[in-house]
Amino acid sequence: MGKTLIFGHKSPDTDTIASALVYADLKNTLGFEAQPARLGEVSKETQFVLDYFGVEAPAYIEKVDESVDSVILVDHNEFQQSVDNIGDVRIAEVIDHHKVSNFETKEPLYFRAEPVGCTATILNKMHKENGVILSKENAGLLLSAIISDTLLLKSPTCTTADTEAAHELAEIAGVDLDKYGLDMLKSGADLNDKSALD
Amino acid sequence: MGKTLIFGHKSPDTDTIASALVYADLKNTLGFEAQPARLGEVSKETQFVLDYFGVEAPAYIEKVDESVDSVILVDHNEFQQSVDNIGDVRIAEVIDHHKVSNFETKEPLYFRAEPVGCTATILNKMHKENGVILSKENAGLLLSAIISDTLLLKSPTCTTADTEAAHELAEIAGVDLDKYGLDMLKSGADLNDKSALD
Ligand SMILES: [Mn+2]
Ligand SMILES: [Mn+2]
Ligand SMILES: [Mn+2]
Ligand SMILES: [Mn+2]
Repeated sequence: MGKTLIFGHKSPDTDTIASALVYADLKNTLGFEAQPARLGEVSKETQFVLDYFGVEAPAYIEKVDESVDSVILVDHNEFQQSVDNIGDVRIAEVIDHHKVSNFETKEPLYFRAEPVGCTATILNKMHKENGVILSKENAGLLLSAIISDTLLLKSPTCTTADTEAAHELAEIAGVDLDKYGLDMLKSGADLNDKSALD
Repeated sequence: MGKTLIFGHKSPDTDTIASALVYADLKNTLGFEAQPARLGEVSKETQFVLDYFGVEAPAYIEKVDESVDSVILVDHNEFQQSVDNIGDVRIAEVIDHHKVSNFETKEPLYFRAEPVGCTATILNKMHKENGVILSKENAGLLLSAIISDTLLLKSPTCTTADTEAAHELAEIAGVDLDKYGLDMLKSGADLNDKSALD
């Protein structure tokens, strides 16, 4: 079995980066080789999160090279938001929370979209389904993604599932949800580089 | 909350009919109102299954009428295979095992596709996830769908998940997998009306 790359959308936000990192880790824990990647610059907000939890950003890729056997899309499904050569690669999975649009495959795949506020909320559930306990760092990454996508649980897209996940994750990550959340959102707001995508 | 209709593809096969019936029942058990429907004639094979387990076919619909609030697609996602006015209705969910193609929504939804041989295999899993025990009839319907889509576990699309589900379901349904399976496939073959769609 060849290499599998996991990445989110272009102009990566915190959900995209956190979901790629944490899902690659889950795949590895479950015995599947997978590497996280990113399609653009890490935002100031995301860098704050990575520094806080001592995690390195995924490697930047411009396109999927030929050593890659399949890709997993997180936090997006629309081809325009994905890697430029997405049409040439095998998509093994999609984990997302957006409407489905401009997406198609030649073969059956594992496609999981749920109408929640954040991909991280789905990934938190997938850890439970697989009986895998989140590390403090990974809980911190997923928590940060939820805070980012739901603006600290206040956006209209925030669901009960997101709120419950955030409280659980804050506990595992060992942070105070409101204090950490405000610091994190401020770190991004300062530099005014938050993506238009959620 | 308005009415929700659950249906599979045009030229319905056994997976399409069984999945609509069983998923509507699961939704009702979980406290959500939902009704199964079908977009075409019941095949001879499917009628054999319905008669065997004493279940009525879902109601035929030509289009989704205005009393319907949302629809759930099972065993398909391509709009060409769906109800004619699919572009005008809110798609709340998709449960499928085919490639994704010619599908899009305006809003986030619950979209669950898995690369297995049959929608019924996913529905069997969803009962477990929700802690709902299948009735003998519903187990018989799901089993029949797997037998139909995998040609009694022999097609190249049949996965370990389908095989395991079929054995489990045969036990609950109280039938001998091979004997029932052959009788069922023969009932359809006689009339030569099996759909090209799996
Ligand atoms: Mn997101
Ligand atoms: Mn995003
Ligand atoms: Mn099918
Ligand atoms: Mn079918």
